[in-house]
Amino acid sequence: MNYGSIEAGGTKFVCAIGNENFQIEDRIQFSTTDPKETLYKAKEYLKKFQVDALGIASFGPIDINEKSSKYGYITNTPKERWQNTNFVGYMKEKMGGLPISWTTDVNAAAYGEYIMWERQGKKVDSLVYYTIGTGVGAGAVVRGDLIGGTGHPEMGHVLLKRHSNDNFPGICPFHKDCLEGLVSGPTFEFRLNKRGEDVSKEDPIWDMIAYYIAQAAMQVTLILRPEKIVFGGGVVSEPLLEKVREELKYMLNDYIPLPDLRAYISMPVAESNGSATIGNFALAQKIMM
Amino acid sequence: MNYGSIEAGGTKFVCAIGNENFQIEDRIQFSTTDPKETLYKAKEYLKKFQVDALGIASFGPIDINEKSSKYGYITNTPKERWQNTNFVGYMKEKMGGLPISWTTDVNAAAYGEYIMWERQGKKVDSLVYYTIGTGVGAGAVVRGDLIGGTGHPEMGHVLLKRHSNDNFPGICPFHKDCLEGLVSGPTFEFRLNKRGEDVSKEDPIWDMIAYYIAQAAMQVTLILRPEKIVFGGGVVSEPLLEKVREELKYMLNDYIPLPDLRAYISMPVAESNGSATIGNFALAQKIMM
Repeated sequence: MNYGSIEAGGTKFVCAIGNENFQIEDRIQFSTTDPKETLYKAKEYLKKFQVDALGIASFGPIDINEKSSKYGYITNTPKERWQNTNFVGYMKEKMGGLPISWTTDVNAAAYGEYIMWERQGKKVDSLVYYTIGTGVGAGAVVRGDLIGGTGHPEMGHVLLKRHSNDNFPGICPFHKDCLEGLVSGPTFEFRLNKRGEDVSKEDPIWDMIAYYIAQAAMQVTLILRPEKIVFGGGVVSEPLLEKVREELKYMLNDYIPLPDLRAYISMPVAESNGSATIGNFALAQKIMM
Repeated sequence: MNYGSIEAGGTKFVCAIGNENFQIEDRIQFSTTDPKETLYKAKEYLKKFQVDALGIASFGPIDINEKSSKYGYITNTPKERWQNTNFVGYMKEKMGGLPISWTTDVNAAAYGEYIMWERQGKKVDSLVYYTIGTGVGAGAVVRGDLIGGTGHPEMGHVLLKRHSNDNFPGICPFHKDCLEGLVSGPTFEFRLNKRGEDVSKEDPIWDMIAYYIAQAAMQVTLILRPEKIVFGGGVVSEPLLEKVREELKYMLNDYIPLPDLRAYISMPVAESNGSATIGNFALAQKIMM
């Protein structure tokens, strides 16, 4: 068996071919332009291989409700050219009815991390994966399945207790000072007039960012009681996560027992942002079973 | 088949016997005193009937991890006499090894509401049940199962964006101004020097309360994407929920599609706080299958 993966990001597409052990056998990436050109490139690439099932992980919002007439579409994304794009329909048509799994980028990443822990013999019952980069989002696996009732989670848009020293209004076009509006990559330029990667690790801004990310971790801890929370994305670093662990410990105040915080809150196991690709392979395999 | 139910609350115990259709055939309630006396009364009551399985829904925190040596215990509750009480162990021993389901009061209530919708031919995929009373807690059913990875949810203790006109410090002994610390029943006496039931429905305090409850609804919406959120407990009324719906609509700002808000956010279907009893019967049945 060979599995295909398309990781559709807002700035780039990563396509890959994997074997039954979810090892990458071939990989390509290209810029995200308009849907017609970009989907064509992805399809042409995949057609070069013998692919038995395909996993697609897309930027959102997307329709994942199998009962919906818009299942398989990218829906009301701010990227105007991509609004209302029938991603799955196009691939199904061009790839001869290939079985396709369809989910968000963060759901696939959560699933990939879950699978990697399992393959290391350290199976977890439940795992949440946050990405904190250009945007903020999360996916979660509970008892082997991705969560989401009527749609996929949008955990980046929760409201938070504001830090008493923080007057920043937030930049989310929908909610101003939700999690994404307070901690996503672009907030650094608005707050400090420089890019996140140019902000010193000693800058006090990181305490603020950690205060908010710890609240996200606290919410998801109290709602889902997961075994693990993984943070990926450009804003995340090990020094930042160390602050998040401290804040979380302080905020939760031993109300519920938590595992060792270094194990509970961590960066991804998969190298070079590969969690979603592995998740795609595994989700493609899952629909074949 | 007959099912037994024990709903163990901090102030009273409700025990009931139900048939296969989850109709209550007999019911008793008595005050919660010390564990020895209270559990004895519950056991003596149940022994009068032919019971095939028992559902217990308890105030918390409780240990529901089947791998734990403290499974079946009430753990570090503020009610000192009840700390470290082996509730399930006592019932198992006294009831001759009867099959017992064991969960929190709000989990059982969530399950009861889920079952009642199903029995009305309106099955939902997922449902969250909040109680807002002396304390605040919630349980959730997703795809037929109660959620909770390493333990039961504690959704009453999430932090929230503070209302700009609210300087109340909050009363949660662990987190001060978490949801429970801001909206639980006892907060009315601290804020207004009168009991919640004596506060006029026109009092502006209800806007504040609705603002916080709407944030809880928003969090759980963005994390779980449930089909329904039910609010029960002494603080909740239909006029309050109408304010919550308005706040939620305003806060979410059409970021994701929601069902009709009157269907999405509602009071319990079960009459006279009966959700947990029905949930107990159904959970008792489930462990027999």
